[in-house]
Amino acid sequence: MAGSPLRAAGRRLQLPLLCLLLQGATAILFAVFVRYNHETDAALWHWGNHSNADNEFYFRYPSFQDVQAMVFVGFGLLMAFLQRYGFSSVGFTFLLAAFALQWSTLVQGFFHSFHGGHIHVGIESMINADFCAAAVLISFGAILGKTGPAQLLLMALLEVVLFGVNEFVLLSLLGVKDAGGSMTIHTFGAYFGLVLSRVLYRPQLEKSKHRQGSVYHSDLFAMIGTIFLWIFWPSFNSAPTTLGDGQQRTALNTYYSLTASTLSTFALSALVGGDGRLDMVHIQNAALAGGVVVGTSAEMMLTPFGALVAGFLAGTVSTLGYKFFTPTLESKFKVQDTCGVHNLHGMPGVLGALLGVLVAGLATHEAYGDGLESVFPLVAEGQRSATSQAVYQLFGLFVTLTFASVGGGLGGLLLRLPFLGSLPDSQCYEDQIYWEVPGEHEEEAQGPLRVEERDTQA
Amino acid sequence: MAGSPLRAAGRRLQLPLLCLLLQGATAILFAVFVRYNHETDAALWHWGNHSNADNEFYFRYPSFQDVQAMVFVGFGLLMAFLQRYGFSSVGFTFLLAAFALQWSTLVQGFFHSFHGGHIHVGIESMINADFCAAAVLISFGAILGKTGPAQLLLMALLEVVLFGVNEFVLLSLLGVKDAGGSMTIHTFGAYFGLVLSRVLYRPQLEKSKHRQGSVYHSDLFAMIGTIFLWIFWPSFNSAPTTLGDGQQRTALNTYYSLTASTLSTFALSALVGGDGRLDMVHIQNAALAGGVVVGTSAEMMLTPFGALVAGFLAGTVSTLGYKFFTPTLESKFKVQDTCGVHNLHGMPGVLGALLGVLVAGLATHEAYGDGLESVFPLVAEGQRSATSQAVYQLFGLFVTLTFASVGGGLGGLLLRLPFLGSLPDSQCYEDQIYWEVPGEHEEEAQGPLRVEERDTQA
Amino acid sequence: MAGSPLRAAGRRLQLPLLCLLLQGATAILFAVFVRYNHETDAALWHWGNHSNADNEFYFRYPSFQDVQAMVFVGFGLLMAFLQRYGFSSVGFTFLLAAFALQWSTLVQGFFHSFHGGHIHVGIESMINADFCAAAVLISFGAILGKTGPAQLLLMALLEVVLFGVNEFVLLSLLGVKDAGGSMTIHTFGAYFGLVLSRVLYRPQLEKSKHRQGSVYHSDLFAMIGTIFLWIFWPSFNSAPTTLGDGQQRTALNTYYSLTASTLSTFALSALVGGDGRLDMVHIQNAALAGGVVVGTSAEMMLTPFGALVAGFLAGTVSTLGYKFFTPTLESKFKVQDTCGVHNLHGMPGVLGALLGVLVAGLATHEAYGDGLESVFPLVAEGQRSATSQAVYQLFGLFVTLTFASVGGGLGGLLLRLPFLGSLPDSQCYEDQIYWEVPGEHEEEAQGPLRVEERDTQA
Repeated sequence: MAGSPLRAAGRRLQLPLLCLLLQGATAILFAVFVRYNHETDAALWHWGNHSNADNEFYFRYPSFQDVQAMVFVGFGLLMAFLQRYGFSSVGFTFLLAAFALQWSTLVQGFFHSFHGGHIHVGIESMINADFCAAAVLISFGAILGKTGPAQLLLMALLEVVLFGVNEFVLLSLLGVKDAGGSMTIHTFGAYFGLVLSRVLYRPQLEKSKHRQGSVYHSDLFAMIGTIFLWIFWPSFNSAPTTLGDGQQRTALNTYYSLTASTLSTFALSALVGGDGRLDMVHIQNAALAGGVVVGTSAEMMLTPFGALVAGFLAGTVSTLGYKFFTPTLESKFKVQDTCGVHNLHGMPGVLGALLGVLVAGLATHEAYGDGLESVFPLVAEGQRSATSQAVYQLFGLFVTLTFASVGGGLGGLLLRLPFLGSLPDSQCYEDQIYWEVPGEHEEEAQGPLRVEERDTQA
Repeated sequence: MAGSPLRAAGRRLQLPLLCLLLQGATAILFAVFVRYNHETDAALWHWGNHSNADNEFYFRYPSFQDVQAMVFVGFGLLMAFLQRYGFSSVGFTFLLAAFALQWSTLVQGFFHSFHGGHIHVGIESMINADFCAAAVLISFGAILGKTGPAQLLLMALLEVVLFGVNEFVLLSLLGVKDAGGSMTIHTFGAYFGLVLSRVLYRPQLEKSKHRQGSVYHSDLFAMIGTIFLWIFWPSFNSAPTTLGDGQQRTALNTYYSLTASTLSTFALSALVGGDGRLDMVHIQNAALAGGVVVGTSAEMMLTPFGALVAGFLAGTVSTLGYKFFTPTLESKFKVQDTCGVHNLHGMPGVLGALLGVLVAGLATHEAYGDGLESVFPLVAEGQRSATSQAVYQLFGLFVTLTFASVGGGLGGLLLRLPFLGSLPDSQCYEDQIYWEVPGEHEEEAQGPLRVEERDTQA
Repeated sequence: MAGSPLRAAGRRLQLPLLCLLLQGATAILFAVFVRYNHETDAALWHWGNHSNADNEFYFRYPSFQDVQAMVFVGFGLLMAFLQRYGFSSVGFTFLLAAFALQWSTLVQGFFHSFHGGHIHVGIESMINADFCAAAVLISFGAILGKTGPAQLLLMALLEVVLFGVNEFVLLSLLGVKDAGGSMTIHTFGAYFGLVLSRVLYRPQLEKSKHRQGSVYHSDLFAMIGTIFLWIFWPSFNSAPTTLGDGQQRTALNTYYSLTASTLSTFALSALVGGDGRLDMVHIQNAALAGGVVVGTSAEMMLTPFGALVAGFLAGTVSTLGYKFFTPTLESKFKVQDTCGVHNLHGMPGVLGALLGVLVAGLATHEAYGDGLESVFPLVAEGQRSATSQAVYQLFGLFVTLTFASVGGGLGGLLLRLPFLGSLPDSQCYEDQIYWEVPGEHEEEAQGPLRVEERDTQA
């Protein structure tokens, strides 16, 4: 016990030092590498003979802001369903996303907009950075309540790099289409988090079971998150697509897919629920599966009917997953998935990738006309047949699953480094470990939790 | 009692089967009829020689997203003011709106964009579908807490059709202007719901009175709904207007009208309140009446001053309605109006229609210049005088009131079908009937409510 | 005590009469002076040969709506952190902002868009009015919980005028650049409120100390406010800048600055917190300082690296301010700053002004190219050197501090007028004084507060 005060001091400094270190490093890299792109730079923009209306900003900024709302309001509040973990859910979302935005600007920049020794940033890089942050938050959902902020930052440090590599392989090397990220964001984020959660398996997690559920008000906060994700998902999928018909079609397909996943979620939730009653967990999550499932195909000629069918299937699979598969996942596969990201992002993401395979394989010149160039440029240019594009799409899914699994495994090992001092199983899902919680002093008299316990138990 | 288990099973299957049936039916109709319009279809958009900046998407999508936020966040949370009905308020809003968006795409599509055997959809049809969903949610507000989700879906099934017919009669047959829907959305939705509530009159509703109020936190959730409705109402009214000056003028008029209704609501609420204290019900609702009251006239040359006067009157009428008229409505007219939609949508909607009559009647070529063609095309083309347009506007109000009343009556009869098994009067405003509520097991020990009671009492 | 009933009646009428009086006055002034501008007026817009896509509306409306969300959702909910003052925080935000929008339309209109005897309004004036409302709400934050709604309206009446004068002096007379309002909004609003709070110093405020903190749920409501401010701050700073590269650069700089202030806030909060735990007050507020600190310089060629450094410093200064300076401010300077606006708006605002001095002084023709005309027109036209522009920027800060201090002092004297009947120190931070609070009747049995006490104690 002699080392205990020192260890306590070390732990106390862990988060501050890590934040400062990471911020210092990205700042230096920004200084060396990051520059305004030609639409953001005063000299470059005015050098050409542009009309201001041509600035990409006006085509993408409204969607970008909707994506921001999804990342911070949506993910943050959706994870606030836990009764004693609202501060951490919302707060760590904030911290993780803020770091991921900077770090992925660098990583994605090296892969996608590195010219003349510099990374060029603008509205498109901002959208892509938000997408990467979304993947990190999906992984966070799998381990919610079981890891501290320093661990999460390290996870993000690794995951952002692998996200960038995977995205580069798919979009640039394989020529795979995945505008809304069924593969690159949802499948990747979910399986990264699930494998990581497997490595961090906690055999005695039932010691924290009393804090694992929601209370009435925490479910309403979570529902606010759900609604913001739902209403802005058309913007998420359409934010990076080609302009014009591409963005409009993507938004429209996503919109209809979401309505269908909502209806199937209500149907299935009542069907499998006790006494025919609805389960808030299903509504909060599975209703969103319609957005995930068209992440790849929404920019394609999916047709409104196709969007309805896709959404319906996704809501069904997702709700059944929450009811029947999540318990198995824990008992058989030792994967503890706090938010059920396997049901909302994992299975619907894979389904979305497969749907992309199908729709890409069915692409014809008649259906797309001159628009084929925008959606499938390699097919339009004759470098690939539609079938070949479909095979590439399928290959992209396997690449993603591989990167996610290996990455999640590495991430798990990283987070088990002893000096990170993970929580005892009895203290999961509890804000008081990390936050000064109002009114806790009275409660402490009854002795529910003490921070010092961490050292003795860890 | 022999039939009770069977009836319980039947009831348990009611919502799932209805959801699946409705989703199946709309999906088939989508397959047969719904197609991308020329701005959403890859081949059609690229066939012409368009600049992407011309795509309607960029003129209307930001407003559409604001409307989505109003429908789902705004209406959903505003109705969450009840202490034990937050899950249902937010959840059934979700369910109803999701279905209404699909169903009204079909109904409105048949009336407004049916060419060559197909309904053509795009950003405008999405906005219009959201508008129809808003009307359904207004009706929901009148019967909030007193009907189950299956009943609500049936109501939506009927109401969407009548909404579409009424809108078609007004906008297409009568040439009435009603961009923000003072008539087609607010008046229609309110009186449909009120008549329906009349038919479903519950003589012993005071048995549920202890659950009819708010608690501190539920009022704050509701206030979030109010704020989102308030800030985005300029987008609601301007989303479908003509581009350019039309959208800007509409947004500006709505903005000023809302500021005035807010000031008059605070003034009147304090004036009529006990001890001069403010009433959250007034602030949550009447402050929004300024958006309703300019729904018809905001796109016209109302002038900023006119907007202030309109908003001021609407806030006043609405606050007084909550204080003095709602109790009378129940005691004298046997209309139980949970959210007071008569005060927020009914009276301000009618007032807005009359304001439209006035402002249309005052339209001159001087005031509108060449813009007259956009606002009053029939007047600009000489087919009608301004006075004649005003008379048509007034006639539109009567048509709307007729459709709404007859529709609400039919709806009430539909919802009283015996197999729908309505709630006993003692179990209104209670989430536990339809939802698995966290922490309810402890409470149940004290025996507040049991689902099985429904069968014996119904 | 003879006058007590009369005084009670007088107090009861105070808010209604003031609302009606102010609304009547602004309505008359609107009738006389306010007109649609050439992009909002049907005749004027159609008189020219414009493309609808050129209408300013499409370049600024999405940002405007984000600003609206910040003003009403952001400020309103952020101030709802107090356990018993949520109704007042959200409600008075609503009231104050609604009045400020009207009144600042007039005041700013006289200074900036008064031609031919009329004030011309459109999307730009709407944005500017929202900015002024933001400044009023910042001042409100300093005195939150300690003043009634009538007092707040009088404060707004005065502050809007001084805001308009200060803004006119800076932007129009001195040619100072301050798009996002580090000076005109944040510094002005903060010091106006702080000086006002000094004049209203309450020596026995600890009598209300038990209501001054948050509870678990109120902190989550506040965090919703924080998130909306955070995600939309790029729109706030970029809403009024020049189009094209100007808006995109401003949004991008603000985005990165916010990520850095978030990281430094987490680092510092954990560093100075007890047991290394994070403090919600810091996260809710200091994480936003990155938006404030680039209010002046975000439209300039700050560089992404510069944005990170600025945000990092602002988050650091702000967190340390909450921890160490706020207590001193009360004990030494007798300034009671409920929301810590000195830490979020005051110091970061001044820092932002100084950063603007620096970045303006470094401006070169090489860095800005032909874009110099948009950012520093007087420098581009040769009327000023960059150094001279920097000196003007610095002078603008002093002017702002002077106007704010004198204005806050005047405001304090105004609010101390005896007939306004300020609250006793023991009844601060309490909704029941102004609102009918649900469930209060049970509590009243235990006698926590009675409104009648006001008269005896005042």
